[in-house]
Amino acid sequence: MDWLKIFRAEKKTSAQTAKDRLMVAVAYQREGRMNGPNYLPQMREEILAVVRKFIRVPDDAVQFNVQREDGLEVLELNITLPEDLPRG
Amino acid sequence: MDWLKIFRAEKKTSAQTAKDRLMVAVAYQREGRMNGPNYLPQMREEILAVVRKFIRVPDDAVQFNVQREDGLEVLELNITLPEDLPRG
Repeated sequence: MDWLKIFRAEKKTSAQTAKDRLMVAVAYQREGRMNGPNYLPQMREEILAVVRKFIRVPDDAVQFNVQREDGLEVLELNITLPEDLPRG
Repeated sequence: MDWLKIFRAEKKTSAQTAKDRLMVAVAYQREGRMNGPNYLPQMREEILAVVRKFIRVPDDAVQFNVQREDGLEVLELNITLPEDLPRG
């Protein structure tokens, strides 16, 4: 998948200030089953916990978005990084 | 970002068998700095560790892809789930 193209397109359409951004997307695609696995919500929680361990930002700097359509479920996590974030 | 559209487009262009798939994308977008944060590789490792904790699949079921272009770096993780995976 051409992620560079996808994220560059997003950049152009967003009225973002010139700050660093971290984006995490977790997508689950089902084929021929009615339900996705039960572990999905907890796995997402733990992925988020990892991100927050490394990046300490206020709650309002983190945007969540869940998109669902039959057979496909995507969690998007969009974090605007503060200017004075420690760089290491 | 319209993730449903993005992943649906990917589905159409991929010669995938009818199996469940998990996709994780971690993108870091820099603005006005030469280097991204030092914690990025380790954060990715830990996100991967979370995924592997929940989903035990053979190594060849996991595809890694890193895309870089000035100011933008994307790690893509694409996992084809086995038919007989425990459902949670």
